[in-house]
Order: sequence, then structure tokens, then C-alpha cells
Amino acid sequence: MDPAVADLTPDPQMLDRLAEVAVKVGLNLQPGQDLVLTAPTGALPLVRRVAAAAYRAGAGLVTPILADEGVTLARYRNAADESFDRAPGWLYKGMAEAFAGGAARMAISGDNPMLLSGEDAAKVARAGKANSLAYKPAMKHIVEHDINWSIVAYPGTAWAKQVFPDLPDAEAVDALAKAIFAASRLNEPDPVAAWQAHNAELEARQRWLTDRQFHALRYSGPGTDFTLGLADGHAWRGGASKAKNGVVCNPNIPTEEVFTTPHARRAEGTVRASKPLAHQGSLIEGIEVRFEGGAIVEAKATKGEAVLQQLLASDEGARRLGEVALVPHSSPISQSGLLFYNTLFDENAASHIALGQCYSGCFRDTSLSEEALAAAGGNSSIIHVDWMIGSAEIDIDGLDADGTATPVMRGGEWASAV
Amino acid sequence: MDPAVADLTPDPQMLDRLAEVAVKVGLNLQPGQDLVLTAPTGALPLVRRVAAAAYRAGAGLVTPILADEGVTLARYRNAADESFDRAPGWLYKGMAEAFAGGAARMAISGDNPMLLSGEDAAKVARAGKANSLAYKPAMKHIVEHDINWSIVAYPGTAWAKQVFPDLPDAEAVDALAKAIFAASRLNEPDPVAAWQAHNAELEARQRWLTDRQFHALRYSGPGTDFTLGLADGHAWRGGASKAKNGVVCNPNIPTEEVFTTPHARRAEGTVRASKPLAHQGSLIEGIEVRFEGGAIVEAKATKGEAVLQQLLASDEGARRLGEVALVPHSSPISQSGLLFYNTLFDENAASHIALGQCYSGCFRDTSLSEEALAAAGGNSSIIHVDWMIGSAEIDIDGLDADGTATPVMRGGEWASAV
Ligand SMILES: [Zn+2]
Ligand SMILES: [Zn+2]
Ligand SMILES: [Zn+2]
Ligand SMILES: [Zn+2]
Repeated sequence: MDPAVADLTPDPQMLDRLAEVAVKVGLNLQPGQDLVLTAPTGALPLVRRVAAAAYRAGAGLVTPILADEGVTLARYRNAADESFDRAPGWLYKGMAEAFAGGAARMAISGDNPMLLSGEDAAKVARAGKANSLAYKPAMKHIVEHDINWSIVAYPGTAWAKQVFPDLPDAEAVDALAKAIFAASRLNEPDPVAAWQAHNAELEARQRWLTDRQFHALRYSGPGTDFTLGLADGHAWRGGASKAKNGVVCNPNIPTEEVFTTPHARRAEGTVRASKPLAHQGSLIEGIEVRFEGGAIVEAKATKGEAVLQQLLASDEGARRLGEVALVPHSSPISQSGLLFYNTLFDENAASHIALGQCYSGCFRDTSLSEEALAAAGGNSSIIHVDWMIGSAEIDIDGLDADGTATPVMRGGEWASAV
Repeated sequence: MDPAVADLTPDPQMLDRLAEVAVKVGLNLQPGQDLVLTAPTGALPLVRRVAAAAYRAGAGLVTPILADEGVTLARYRNAADESFDRAPGWLYKGMAEAFAGGAARMAISGDNPMLLSGEDAAKVARAGKANSLAYKPAMKHIVEHDINWSIVAYPGTAWAKQVFPDLPDAEAVDALAKAIFAASRLNEPDPVAAWQAHNAELEARQRWLTDRQFHALRYSGPGTDFTLGLADGHAWRGGASKAKNGVVCNPNIPTEEVFTTPHARRAEGTVRASKPLAHQGSLIEGIEVRFEGGAIVEAKATKGEAVLQQLLASDEGARRLGEVALVPHSSPISQSGLLFYNTLFDENAASHIALGQCYSGCFRDTSLSEEALAAAGGNSSIIHVDWMIGSAEIDIDGLDADGTATPVMRGGEWASAV
């Protein structure tokens, strides 16, 4: 029942730096602001440091909500079938209330990505769906960017062993920790200043793309011949962004992507994933899908196809796209050559698209009604799952409504300077 | 920031037995019932086993809400002054909603009883008060016994070192674990059957006391000359009890006491505590108080008097009594001779009284309105703090309204068989 591997604590000084970056850059936590902090129990050494950094920044109250993998496994191995349609709605409603009351939100990611790989895929999907539905009122405050929020990573031992299966535990944790710390820019003499410079670069790239207002993007490469409409009035985002509460935060630490909202009813052609997708403890490999009228009408995978089909069946919007993101193949995370089995990292290693819910903040007008959002092409779903389609072999053109093409990426790199 | 002592896991097989007794006897969890489980992070080995036992018993969903001592210390050492008046009301409102929806509640107790002994007593008191106020809507379901609930104990390392300061860590954990397991009746061949027999004994004692309907109890002993009115229509309780949802549970594992509601406006005389009181990380020793008209009008302590005064100032009801409990001096926990620094154990080592909130279930009519409850003598407060006044030197008489005395205890033991 206890997790198979004992948790090892990485370099405490670097964890202190990570906590500082998480609170100052990731959240930009304001004096007096409360913080709701979710994390796996294995990440407690970072949870404690984030709490300390938040209080030093003047936090009102830091409330950790800890999830334990041992408890999760106890459920899959002992619970009655009916259990898998249940979710703690009372807790999520409470979180929604905290966000509505102005609390910031931090998620520490560091779970064992393969935790549920041996469990019944149908139960995993049902539990995931029940959870997503119950979490929706809280998630709304995140996707609509009402508050400052951020995700950071902690090198949990099981995760480290997944990324570095051939290393002994302590060395695997050390290697993953180093990769996380580097990608989070903690090796810079002044990490906060390094993040400011990086945010400025991402902002210039966004502005160029938003000013173009491409009607669609066309992807070509091995197994991929795909045209993806962009939503009407879309705006590209990335790096720092201003929440509706006025606080400029960095929702992802690390981040290398610029992204926007695709048009949910305009996507045609075939796409091949360029990396495996780790989803709720399962690995889906060799994904190939075909789009018609914005929806996936055919999907296969060489491994984990059942999980993929469950995912696509989550709801109507699960077969349509809610995000398109561009990441140059030369990005530091891409160049590490690692498969992290964790979206926070893998989505910053390659251009990607996401199934499911769109970000309403990815529009020039960020106060669109739900109806206006849907009319402009914004997708709605209980899921949001990123998968990687970029590589050194992918070319991307921006298409105007009349078909005029502008090179955006060539061989996985930006086609022009900004 | 990480706790000073590493946590050690006691005998896994005994933890499995404890989890089983907690779920079957403590909660008597019903098939399909959800469970909200609070615990310190150090108790994870038991949390996981309780989750597994609950799911084996058919639980709907088990939701652990874990508190971390490192995060608590991070607050006391880094937070702005204003932080200490804040509490996670959104979380407690959520818990209240879970209880209203039929979830059972288990608390695992195993915290470091001295965690906050070095912190500012005023801040500790303010944080405690803010928390009690915010928790009141959830606590109401517990004190009014709407649902089945239970508290069990886990031998956390810091707690074990407090009880056995002269033993090395592993031996201290082992010694405390043995004491917890023995008091929880896990050494019996069939612990569930042993609990049934114990509950039957406690029930016979309660019935005798409730049938007498004493007007008051009179305590005499060293430093104690005290007459305590009992509430009108009071009923003695102890051991198993039936919640309003119809489920018979054991709210405390272990338990040796029978208890009822005193009259909040009838208590006269002086009382000397027979043991130190561990409260929110501080130790209060040598308590002596004087009552007039039901309220404490004078209070002193040889150590921790500031904490005691803060406690009494929590609200109007904090100076009045909400519980009176009788425990024979020969009870197994008393005979262990240990000071546990934990109410769950220490209150079962000696007769005691509690400052603050009464249990509305300790009346013959358990559906009294709030007004009727107050009129009958039931006290209301944001606190409920037990302190020990029993010993081998205490005599207790039951007094009728006309002053007729019936011996209840002599030299700390029951004066008559039932
Ligand atoms: Zn993305
Ligand atoms: Zn995404
Ligand atoms: Zn008691
Ligand atoms: Zn009590």
C-alpha cells in the first residue's frame, strides 16, 4: 500500500530557489492574498518551501491540498465499482469559492506518470471524467484566468525513475532535479531577471502572430498533412500573462510555447503525434488521427489505443481542439532529448495541439460571453489534453482567408526573426 | 523547514488491524458512504490503510485532507501578522457540505503535541480561534452527531519522543505504538468482539447514571472542593452511540469514559487539575480554577498560564463547562502511568471536565432546539477542551435536588457495581 519507492529529497538550496521563482515569477503572489496549493504528498519538501516563500511574500493563508498515490492505489485495488463515478464535489466547490474570493492557485506536478498504467482503463476514464465534471466550477476560474495561477514541477522519485529507468534511485532524482532546475532557469545568476528577459522574447513572438491574424495554420511533415483553422479574433499568448484580477503571472514554470485558440469547427487532414502521450498513468504511443470539420473522425495508436478512445469519448468537445501551440525544436527542453512523461515539460519540447477546452483568454476580447466564444470557434469540454506534433521535420505556414501562405516555421524553427 | 525527525513506520500488520477496527468499530462505515479523513502527513502509513479498509467495506469515495507540520511552522516563522486571523473557511464549508450529504468523518490524531510550544502564544490563540470559528458549520454535524464519526491515533515520531523522551526514535515509536495498539484492544484475538463487550459494560454504567438523574456531582480531594450541576434532562453517554443517520459508531478509539452535559450556570468551588493539559502545542501545568455561578472567575497555572488565559478568553462560553466525564482510576490507560500529551488518551486516564461546547446528544431528548438546550443548561462555545481532574484521591457523590448524596466514586473507583 505504501509507494514502492521511498521519496528522496533533492538539493535543498535549489528547492529554495525553485520556491522563490514559483511564488515571485509563477504566481507573483500579492501581499494579503491567500494561496491554494495542490501537490502530491511526495512533493512535501517543495510544498513547505513554497509555503514559506509565500508567507515571506505576505500571503494571507496558504492551504495545501495534498493527494496521495498510496490512497489512489488503495481505491483502484479495493473499491466497489460504483466508487469510480464519484468525485469530491464539496472540495472542488470550496476551491471555486476560494478562487472567487481572490485566492491564487499553485499546482505542484511531480506524480508518478505511470501510477495507473496497470489499472482498468475504463475505471481510470470514469474516475477522471467524474473528477473533471466536479472540478469544472473551480477550473472555470483558471481557464478564464480570473486569478493568478501557476504550475511548477518537483522531481518525485517514481517520476525520476520513469525518465531515467537505468539510473539508481538517487541518481535518477538528481538527474531529473537538474533538468527541472535548468528548465526553470534556476541556474541563472538572477532567475527572476532571466524570466523577465524570456517573457519579453515570448511577447514579441506573440505580438507578431496576433497581428497577422492568420485564418489557418497548415502543417506538413511525415504522417502529417493538416490544416487547422484559428478562432475569429484569436490572440496568441505565452510566458507571462495578466489575470483578470490584474496580477501578471507565469502560469507555467517552465514555459517555451506561444499558443492560441483554434477554430473548433475548422480542422481537416491527418496528424501524427511526434512523441508518446502520458495520460492519467497510461502511455499512448504512435497516435495518428484524421480530422473532418474540426472533429476527429478516425483515431489509432500503436499502444494505449483504448485509453485514447476513452479520452475522445469524454464528451462532444473531446474530439475537437482547444489549443494550438508553437515551440521551436531548438528550445532547451527539446534539446535535452528527454521524454518527461509530463505535459508541463513535454509540451515545451515541441509544437502541439490540445483536445478539449479552450482558453477564453486567447482572444483579443477577453470578456466574450460563452455564446460569443463558441461562435468565434472556441471549444468547450471537460478535458484539456496536450499532445505533441512538432519536430525538426515539420513545416508550418500561416494561411490568410484567400489562401496566401506566410512561412511560420521551417524544419521546426521559426521562419523569421521578430 | 522539514520536520526535525524522520517518520518511522510501526508494525504494518498492527496498522492493518488498527485500520480495520477504525473502519468497522470506530466508523461502522456503510456501503456506498463517502468518508472525509483528516490526518497529519506523518500518519500516511495509516491513512493509506484506512482508505483501503474503507474501500473494502464498500466506501463511495475516501477524501483525505492532510495537514503538514512543516507548512504550519512555515506560517509561524514567515507570515505577516494579519495571517493569524485567517482560516480556510471555503474548505470547512465544503466539509460541512460533505457531512450534510451523508459522508462519515474520521480524524487520525498523531501530531507533535509540542509543535507550537516555541511560538507566540497570542498568534497561536488567534489562529486557533479563527480556525474554530470557520470550522463551526462542519463541527456542528459532529457535536450534534448527525453522522458516524471517529478519532483514532497514529504513533507519530515527534509525539512518541514527547511521551518517551529517553528512548531512541525507533524504540519510542515502538513503545507508543504498543500503547496505542493495546488501548485500542488490538491485542485481543477478535478486536471487534472485544469492543462489543467493552461497549456493553459502558452502556450499563451510563444507564445507571442516567436513571439516577443527579441534580449535581460533588468532588472532593486535594485542592478540589467542587459542586457541578448537571443539565436538566441530561443523559450519560460513552462507548458506542447511534448517530442521527442511524449508524452506531465509536467516536473515540480508545475510550474508557462515560460522560454527560453539565449545567453551564451551576458550578461552584475550586478545582485542581490532576494532570498537565497539552493544548495546541503548549503544555499547561498546575491548573487551579475557581467557579462561581458556572463560570471560571479565577484561573492560575504554574506553567503556561498565558495560554490558559487566552483559551478562557476565546468567547463567553469558554469559561463554562460543556462536558463532565467519569473514568475509573483503574482503567488500562490510567494504569499505563503514561502522560500521552493527547486528549484521546489522557481523557481516558482520569475523570475530567471540558471547557466550552456541550454535546447536544447528551440529553434524553436529542432533538432539543438551540434555545431549549441552552435553557436546560447546555453550554455553547467555539472551543471544547478537556482537562483531567480525577485521581486515586478523588471522591465523587451524586446529589439530588434536596441534597441527598449517593456515592458515585471512592478513591477514584466506581462506588458500586452495575
Ligand atoms: Zn500548451
Ligand atoms: Zn495545453
Ligand atoms: Zn471526555
Ligand atoms: Zn471532551
